[in-house]
Amino acid sequence: MQLPKINFKKGEDRELGFGTSAGTKSRLMNRDGSSNIIRKGISHFSPINIYHDLITMSWKKFFLLVLAGYFTMNCLFALIYTFIGIENLTGVEHINFTHDFWEAFFFSSQSFTTVGYGRVAPVSKLASSIAAFESLLGLLSLAVATGLLYGRFSRPTSALLYSTNCLVAPYKEIKGLMFRVANARKNQLIEIEASVILAINTSVDGKVQRRFQNLELEIKRINFLSLSWTIVHPIDENSPLYNLTKQDFEDGKAEVLILIKGIDDTYATTVYSRSSYTSKEIIWDAKFVPIINNNMNGKTEIDLSRISEYTMVG
Amino acid sequence: MQLPKINFKKGEDRELGFGTSAGTKSRLMNRDGSSNIIRKGISHFSPINIYHDLITMSWKKFFLLVLAGYFTMNCLFALIYTFIGIENLTGVEHINFTHDFWEAFFFSSQSFTTVGYGRVAPVSKLASSIAAFESLLGLLSLAVATGLLYGRFSRPTSALLYSTNCLVAPYKEIKGLMFRVANARKNQLIEIEASVILAINTSVDGKVQRRFQNLELEIKRINFLSLSWTIVHPIDENSPLYNLTKQDFEDGKAEVLILIKGIDDTYATTVYSRSSYTSKEIIWDAKFVPIINNNMNGKTEIDLSRISEYTMVG
Amino acid sequence: MQLPKINFKKGEDRELGFGTSAGTKSRLMNRDGSSNIIRKGISHFSPINIYHDLITMSWKKFFLLVLAGYFTMNCLFALIYTFIGIENLTGVEHINFTHDFWEAFFFSSQSFTTVGYGRVAPVSKLASSIAAFESLLGLLSLAVATGLLYGRFSRPTSALLYSTNCLVAPYKEIKGLMFRVANARKNQLIEIEASVILAINTSVDGKVQRRFQNLELEIKRINFLSLSWTIVHPIDENSPLYNLTKQDFEDGKAEVLILIKGIDDTYATTVYSRSSYTSKEIIWDAKFVPIINNNMNGKTEIDLSRISEYTMVG
Amino acid sequence: MQLPKINFKKGEDRELGFGTSAGTKSRLMNRDGSSNIIRKGISHFSPINIYHDLITMSWKKFFLLVLAGYFTMNCLFALIYTFIGIENLTGVEHINFTHDFWEAFFFSSQSFTTVGYGRVAPVSKLASSIAAFESLLGLLSLAVATGLLYGRFSRPTSALLYSTNCLVAPYKEIKGLMFRVANARKNQLIEIEASVILAINTSVDGKVQRRFQNLELEIKRINFLSLSWTIVHPIDENSPLYNLTKQDFEDGKAEVLILIKGIDDTYATTVYSRSSYTSKEIIWDAKFVPIINNNMNGKTEIDLSRISEYTMVG
Repeated sequence: MQLPKINFKKGEDRELGFGTSAGTKSRLMNRDGSSNIIRKGISHFSPINIYHDLITMSWKKFFLLVLAGYFTMNCLFALIYTFIGIENLTGVEHINFTHDFWEAFFFSSQSFTTVGYGRVAPVSKLASSIAAFESLLGLLSLAVATGLLYGRFSRPTSALLYSTNCLVAPYKEIKGLMFRVANARKNQLIEIEASVILAINTSVDGKVQRRFQNLELEIKRINFLSLSWTIVHPIDENSPLYNLTKQDFEDGKAEVLILIKGIDDTYATTVYSRSSYTSKEIIWDAKFVPIINNNMNGKTEIDLSRISEYTMVG
Repeated sequence: MQLPKINFKKGEDRELGFGTSAGTKSRLMNRDGSSNIIRKGISHFSPINIYHDLITMSWKKFFLLVLAGYFTMNCLFALIYTFIGIENLTGVEHINFTHDFWEAFFFSSQSFTTVGYGRVAPVSKLASSIAAFESLLGLLSLAVATGLLYGRFSRPTSALLYSTNCLVAPYKEIKGLMFRVANARKNQLIEIEASVILAINTSVDGKVQRRFQNLELEIKRINFLSLSWTIVHPIDENSPLYNLTKQDFEDGKAEVLILIKGIDDTYATTVYSRSSYTSKEIIWDAKFVPIINNNMNGKTEIDLSRISEYTMVG
Repeated sequence: MQLPKINFKKGEDRELGFGTSAGTKSRLMNRDGSSNIIRKGISHFSPINIYHDLITMSWKKFFLLVLAGYFTMNCLFALIYTFIGIENLTGVEHINFTHDFWEAFFFSSQSFTTVGYGRVAPVSKLASSIAAFESLLGLLSLAVATGLLYGRFSRPTSALLYSTNCLVAPYKEIKGLMFRVANARKNQLIEIEASVILAINTSVDGKVQRRFQNLELEIKRINFLSLSWTIVHPIDENSPLYNLTKQDFEDGKAEVLILIKGIDDTYATTVYSRSSYTSKEIIWDAKFVPIINNNMNGKTEIDLSRISEYTMVG
Repeated sequence: MQLPKINFKKGEDRELGFGTSAGTKSRLMNRDGSSNIIRKGISHFSPINIYHDLITMSWKKFFLLVLAGYFTMNCLFALIYTFIGIENLTGVEHINFTHDFWEAFFFSSQSFTTVGYGRVAPVSKLASSIAAFESLLGLLSLAVATGLLYGRFSRPTSALLYSTNCLVAPYKEIKGLMFRVANARKNQLIEIEASVILAINTSVDGKVQRRFQNLELEIKRINFLSLSWTIVHPIDENSPLYNLTKQDFEDGKAEVLILIKGIDDTYATTVYSRSSYTSKEIIWDAKFVPIINNNMNGKTEIDLSRISEYTMVG
């Protein structure tokens, strides 16, 4: 196996921040845009990192965690109320641990949510203090939950749809490296800019190094992303891909890194999206199937579910 | 019908993102700035798209939805409480389904809002569990509602008033395409920039294509939008509109697309506004009526209700 | 009275957005940066404008409004409960209107805040429905209040302190127009940029016109506003103020408009501040008193309370 | 002691905002990026400054303050209820002050949190009014707490890790001033830019002045901060550090000021980080230990806990 020779522009590859020895064996960036790097020494349990996890996890996981937290919290307080004695609460009689625990559990839930029916209520100073603390805790939890839910919804994320594959397709008289993106949300994306970077292993003074090179785009900025956008890097003489073959891509463990930014019109915030294609996800000699057409009323229509469809050429 | 011949600047029309075959029959952009394109394959029921709808719908629709949701939620839980048996609640007696349902309905509302008077309260483990879950749900709904209301109010929207019509009016020694904008809100808009784009059908190699061309503006940026701003494209020799007639506009299904951005001083956020005029909304040989004057105290006064008023000339 | 002759740079004054006839008698901008223009035809009662008022009013007014709203809301619901008959509530007996009203008033407050002690609770379907609606309203009000309070606190405002007067003071070998600003908050302001504009009446073809001219600054951008910043326009031959006298300023109703923007480090948001000095607020032949010094521990110290202090010179 | 002679570029040092006499004895900027300047005349008790303190203080201090505030508030209201007479509340009997106070205290906590069990409830008009006011206050406090917690979590802070020391290390054929930064959070930082400024005392016309000079960086901007970033100022002939010795740094009380900005990908907000190294924190003739390597699976791994490690050279 021989590493591909590529004519890199001087200095350009220094500014990506991945370093030259990084990721020679596995991809640098995952399909969802997260970086494929292991960082040790980060405190996973600092409030800000826990918050970050709660903001970015899936809805399903988030709600399960909320339910689990609520249940655990009530169990904890139920144990405390049972421990100090159920006679500290009005409206319940001591029978046995299980009975007392559940009465305390529901009293706890009524204090935590501040619903406070009052059928069961604290009488002693001790129980009253715990209940006073618990309802404060409930309110603070509500405050945190409000922030979390707002954060989850309003976080500027772009949900760009990327075509599953990147194609090397005929483009004008030459070839072009191209992929297709579209907005999967109902919001409007404006002022969208793309930049595409090739990462490839090459031989520098006999040592394997991972080099990075910016790929020039036919159009690198559009005003609206209402339709789909086929982003094209023309493979002309100035392209670092000129004369490279499918085999070169595989030998050099090529990865096409994509950085897109735009403005989400709903909140006027800048949104960032990243993705990457490894050499296995690049199809040679294929072209995308058109997905835009005018319907019977003369309106333009796009079918986003077909964004990844392509046909082989030649 | 003959398509107008226009001297387009090379490449400039590629970067708008609408494509060349788009919207040859109907307008690309609606008056309110939303794009007139049908996008299939979007999941309308993803949390983020539902949130987007709830943020952007009218206040009336929003409050009706809140009320309907509250009513439905209470009905649902009322059915559950009735189903497991009203004897699981204190303070109510089983009479018949209707009576039980309504007692359960109001108990549900008292649990959901966490008002919890306690006249009716859960006793059994089952009813207590359901009530504990319902009050948690109530709190989470409050959390979501807080975010939604904050999002609705703080969303950077500009509420620019556009004159109903775009005019082709005398301008200095030549003519100009012009329209008027003003800020309909009490906030201050600063650093406002406008760009105006002509979309028109033209014949390229015998095929009808929709082409886009930027229209140069006399002034494209102002510091304050305290008064109204008449945005003018002078129709000189360099203008793609030079020598075009009203008929050319109609034949080419011309559309004037407007993109304005500025900074809302209250929250220091960038706001975007878009609109468009089709050939039917462009009035030839008319000029706007002045709406700014000094009142008796020497203060400058503007009457925004007259922003669309014009008189015919010539 | 003769209007001053000023050598304006061509075109530069068009882009401020105040127009040429604006404000010939009174100041364009108030000291607090709000524009001194009357805008008719704005709907003061649209939700977004009411919200804007609630966000920008003083704390005192805000809290009085909240209290008044709470009182009014409870009165309203108290009247409804009294009207349908106090016997719809448990725990109270019908005595007379006043007594009933106050019992209903407090029941209403307990429903609205969702405290719901339960000493008084609704029994009939009608009263229960009203209470269910009221507690929903209470929760929505809480949601709105949360947003308002957050909006009030987090709104990017800069609270720049401006010296009361603008001085024409000796500056190097010439004179300079200068004023002093400082940050009155505990947050850090970074990347601060200033621009200063002269507005003055002048005679154009025999007609009085208000013209605007940018004034060049010695330094227009600093990295940190930890200390005070004396912003200086050197009055050299290129300055439109060159050779102008105090009398010219008064005859031309000169106004110095100031636009400052910077970044609030706490929230990383851009903040804008504006102010203006009329000819009466400009002191000729005076200079600012130094307010920065090193204290005994070698630390730099600034006394913001003395920012406006100056002494006469010459 | 002789002050070092440095060839400053003209004018460049004017734009930092610290002035020339500032901080000749102590550091200008603390390690955490806050400025080491005493500002008198700031109102520490304005709502916005209190809010700023509550947003920026540590979590521990914040929660202690919340608890203290809750306790104080309840004590206050308890005193009021006791003062007007415990007989204004149902469910409690007057025994003595201590007993009454605690019953009132817990009733207060139940009103403030709106849990309202109802075992104790207000009966008289006076007690009801106070309770109505207290529960409103409770809701407003919840609203403020929600905003505070959201503000604390969502505030764009960067938590950049800086190496404890700045090194003067061999760099290519010359030397370089360098330090290392990394992201200590789980969020992704993109488009990071650094600027480094030297502050040093020098002799200008026989007077000691503190001068500022920008230090050119080898790379001043990277796309991703997934790994660590070693920021290098090459000490070549154009560097103001050229020929300066360790002794010069100490005599001139040199301070290296660092300003870094980047974009937090989670919220797409710009984050700012600042730090500084004094002459005592600069190690001469040392180099950083590598902390990036490929693990067994070919994945790139970084150990942030070793970011400050260095070894002596030469």
